[in-house]
Amino acid sequence: MRDALRLAPAAPVTLSSYAADATPVGPREKAAGVAATTAIGPRLADLQERLYAASTAGDTRRVLLVLQGMDTSGKGGTVKHVIGHFNPSGCRIRAFKAPTEEERSHSFLWRITKALPEAGEIGIFDRSHYEDVLIGRVRSLAPPEEIERRYDQINNFERTLTESGVTIVKVFLHVSHEQQKRRLLERLDNPEKYWKFNPGDIEERALWPAYQEAYELALQRCSTPAAPWYLVPADRKWYRNWAISNLLREHLEALDPQYPKADFDIEECRRRLLEAP
Amino acid sequence: MRDALRLAPAAPVTLSSYAADATPVGPREKAAGVAATTAIGPRLADLQERLYAASTAGDTRRVLLVLQGMDTSGKGGTVKHVIGHFNPSGCRIRAFKAPTEEERSHSFLWRITKALPEAGEIGIFDRSHYEDVLIGRVRSLAPPEEIERRYDQINNFERTLTESGVTIVKVFLHVSHEQQKRRLLERLDNPEKYWKFNPGDIEERALWPAYQEAYELALQRCSTPAAPWYLVPADRKWYRNWAISNLLREHLEALDPQYPKADFDIEECRRRLLEAP
Repeated sequence: MRDALRLAPAAPVTLSSYAADATPVGPREKAAGVAATTAIGPRLADLQERLYAASTAGDTRRVLLVLQGMDTSGKGGTVKHVIGHFNPSGCRIRAFKAPTEEERSHSFLWRITKALPEAGEIGIFDRSHYEDVLIGRVRSLAPPEEIERRYDQINNFERTLTESGVTIVKVFLHVSHEQQKRRLLERLDNPEKYWKFNPGDIEERALWPAYQEAYELALQRCSTPAAPWYLVPADRKWYRNWAISNLLREHLEALDPQYPKADFDIEECRRRLLEAP
Repeated sequence: MRDALRLAPAAPVTLSSYAADATPVGPREKAAGVAATTAIGPRLADLQERLYAASTAGDTRRVLLVLQGMDTSGKGGTVKHVIGHFNPSGCRIRAFKAPTEEERSHSFLWRITKALPEAGEIGIFDRSHYEDVLIGRVRSLAPPEEIERRYDQINNFERTLTESGVTIVKVFLHVSHEQQKRRLLERLDNPEKYWKFNPGDIEERALWPAYQEAYELALQRCSTPAAPWYLVPADRKWYRNWAISNLLREHLEALDPQYPKADFDIEECRRRLLEAP
């Protein structure tokens, strides 16, 4: 199914042409979608264990899921509901906030590099280096020529990663302007969700067209054969969960990680265990 | 139930007096234990979300689960089955292996300090600073007087942590010598478990009495009012999962974390959201 959600390398992107409540591939209604996602869980856990096991015998491959999307698009919900299928000990999760003073004193890729998954792990980025061509562009946090350079820097960085055994799965969670309003209002209606709300979210929302344009550029410039972007309609949470679970499953299945063979004498070890007191 | 599993401060410990297949408190058979553990899951997730939410409003409290036990005692299984109940984004998990050269050049508490949970997080240590008075003692990796000093250093370190808002839950997974043999043999019988086996495990097993003695000393010297040890019988995996889930639940309930109040004008934010295009 990943072909149906993958953006073509370097092709222009018009976000308004994608319905955020669409179900372009897979289940079309909630009950079937939830059931299908639940059914994938054990398979994801199995694939992850194989990936981790392979790393103990020298396999350096790893997976990096990059989650990007507007406020309320469901980055945190994806971590909770999709990554929750995995054994937490094999996951390396990092949520990127506004950079610290130390982080700003380095290249924008410095803090990213430090958060990468190790061999056998599944890394998850809630926001990422793409913020530096998104809010960076919209809020003019760097000169235009610097923003321009960053697309190539990102592509080079990601190609180096893929060449060193990192499978990068970049997901843009496509939420609609209307759905964002509903989700922000929900946070104001529920005292248990106040903590997720920030009045600054309203100012960011006012910049919606500029953000959509920045996303369109980033998706076009940084959809590469080595590390394509996937556009996941995110107005329906059950569809988002199904789609990302399946993207991870397909990428892990393509890696086809194998439990390593024993590098010791099984019979001798069994004998020693049975003979000792 | 935590009182039933807690070791008294500074009291001598004789591990052979504890049956590793006991069910000293709670369910006595597997079906009921598994059902009870499953039922706790949503409550753990709820408490964790409250703890994290509170941290966004300045609450600096956090929880640190320390898992210690012999090979096969179920440290990894606990992370998978108990920590799996939580939202992975709020967990900070660290498995400590033999220290690296850089780590050895510092105090044994250096690498521990770097891995501590941040405010609102649940930290999980699979092995910990206790290795430095366990394998450190059994394998004479440091002079006896240095090992001796470490008990006090650990107690001071842990008291400082608790005084800064860390709730430390130290769990010793008590597995029997016989059960360890069965679990090691299982790993040799199943090609999907070979990667978990290391012939070095047999040499460590031969030092069983010395390790039990080292554990008895560590449990006695480092059971303090601020950070007691809990002894969890671990021959039955379902009981281990039930007991640790409940220990976490009780400690989180004692913290009683609260969703923060809104620090913004709810009505004004709602109006601004509804009025904007």
